[in-house]
Amino acid sequence: MARRVLSLDLGGTKLAVGVVNDAGEALAERLRLTPVQTSPAQVIQALLDMAEEAVQEVESGWSGLAGVGISFGGPVDFAAGRTLTCHHLPGWESIPLRDEVADRLGLPAIMDNDANVAALGEARFGAARGRRHVLYLTVSTGIGGGLVLDGRPYRGAHSQAGEIGHIIIAPTGPPCTCGRRGCLEALASGPAIARAAREALRAGEASSLAALPRGELTARDVAQAADAGDELARGIMHAAGEALGVAIAAAANLLDPDIVVIGGGVSQAGDLLLAPAREALAAHAVTDIARRIEVVPGQLGPRGALLGAAALALDML
Amino acid sequence: MARRVLSLDLGGTKLAVGVVNDAGEALAERLRLTPVQTSPAQVIQALLDMAEEAVQEVESGWSGLAGVGISFGGPVDFAAGRTLTCHHLPGWESIPLRDEVADRLGLPAIMDNDANVAALGEARFGAARGRRHVLYLTVSTGIGGGLVLDGRPYRGAHSQAGEIGHIIIAPTGPPCTCGRRGCLEALASGPAIARAAREALRAGEASSLAALPRGELTARDVAQAADAGDELARGIMHAAGEALGVAIAAAANLLDPDIVVIGGGVSQAGDLLLAPAREALAAHAVTDIARRIEVVPGQLGPRGALLGAAALALDML
Repeated sequence: MARRVLSLDLGGTKLAVGVVNDAGEALAERLRLTPVQTSPAQVIQALLDMAEEAVQEVESGWSGLAGVGISFGGPVDFAAGRTLTCHHLPGWESIPLRDEVADRLGLPAIMDNDANVAALGEARFGAARGRRHVLYLTVSTGIGGGLVLDGRPYRGAHSQAGEIGHIIIAPTGPPCTCGRRGCLEALASGPAIARAAREALRAGEASSLAALPRGELTARDVAQAADAGDELARGIMHAAGEALGVAIAAAANLLDPDIVVIGGGVSQAGDLLLAPAREALAAHAVTDIARRIEVVPGQLGPRGALLGAAALALDML
Repeated sequence: MARRVLSLDLGGTKLAVGVVNDAGEALAERLRLTPVQTSPAQVIQALLDMAEEAVQEVESGWSGLAGVGISFGGPVDFAAGRTLTCHHLPGWESIPLRDEVADRLGLPAIMDNDANVAALGEARFGAARGRRHVLYLTVSTGIGGGLVLDGRPYRGAHSQAGEIGHIIIAPTGPPCTCGRRGCLEALASGPAIARAAREALRAGEASSLAALPRGELTARDVAQAADAGDELARGIMHAAGEALGVAIAAAANLLDPDIVVIGGGVSQAGDLLLAPAREALAAHAVTDIARRIEVVPGQLGPRGALLGAAALALDML
């Protein structure tokens, strides 16, 4: 029988649970919105309840599971198996989530942050299958990264590696949540794209986006308008993609990856974002090899963390 | 008996050869300027002649040597053991230097580029002894880098990792040799520092440097004037160090190293360069941990490549 693991994805927006085999196939899954205003203990209980349901759906149940992989939506201390904090949920400072789950389920467990986990998911089961050196970026509310180097997750000295969102692209650019200006995240994240559109509309630029309620404008709206040929929207997506490409070039010059994978909600914009990113990479990479590094969209979408956590558990066994 | 290896350092300026033991002690050394206008075959012969002399000086001679490590002053194909090119010497495209040396000496050989090798040297025998994750920068005529990750040299998918000199710090800054503007190398390399001084003098700024022949001004002159209290020179060194710190922050955010080591000739300026680099790192790093990463000068100086090549050979055995 193929090995099976339980996979838990604890994010600020959703909780997901899966029973996954070593081919990266989910044999059973559960998904729900993350309950807000609840304690970590309640969130953990909700995950374990979902796990119970999913596991019972699969033949051989708990006895068929070899371990548990956990994706956490915030920074973790990997070695200690503790969360450090969560930007979206209260009370998650220094929770020993890995050991809590392991103890309650009686299974070996392993935990990492969602960007690292998604990078591993794409490397094992997705767009970077078979590649040894993978640079993964998630472009969403923020911009994060994960590295798979020499075939293994690379976490750095303090489990903090992968922060690519705050490389400065435009020193005099828009303010970033980190307090500086012109970071990649301030130029290419979902909120940055939406803000660029709002500011252009406020300045009176013509666009089909003017018909939408300005306060609720999202990056998805901008991408859809761009897709439909709106010039302003196309320009905004192009600028975001270009910023992404400049940051990718800096990272690719340093790391010489086999492939660059872009995940996260904003990456659904596809070539609207990736084509200018590839152009900027070609313009800013130092070597001929780096100029030609593939930049591809993730294949696992929102299931990246779930399948990546499974890969993490399978690697541990 | 401690293990001993032969170490060869083939650079654009100098050739160095050493017999080195596993404590990183050179038991015999030879050093000469690299002959210009000579073929690779002649340069190799010069290195092997120096090796013969050095080895004969050590008790047990050739029979005491377990292998050869080679540092090459340009990009290499590590897996193939071939040079790719050398920016300072003609004819070094695709020379199978590793196997040529191994065949002629009858010893196992290994080769890498000088920045990777110097990084490993500092990690094994120098400023980063005992650290697992090391970011090394060499600040000299150009700016290069080398990575030791998880205790091992990290080379990337095509032996091209470590290029940190062309991260863009100031998009509208001075032109770089790579054709773009405001790269780290265009702001903090030796020639960039000298150019900044020349331009300031040309613009009529007051400085003790005005007494020197402007066309021959070097980064060393600027550092010495800064050390003596010259305000213009201090400002130029500060700006170079700041650019260095911004680039280090970007790399540290991505890689979460234990320590950052700065080598290369310009690093001899010490805190004139490193103090502003540390300040800029603290201002530009994302996490508290990254803000506090140590930034230290290399300890091996111009012998970094020689001792690093020895470490490379010792690791191979």
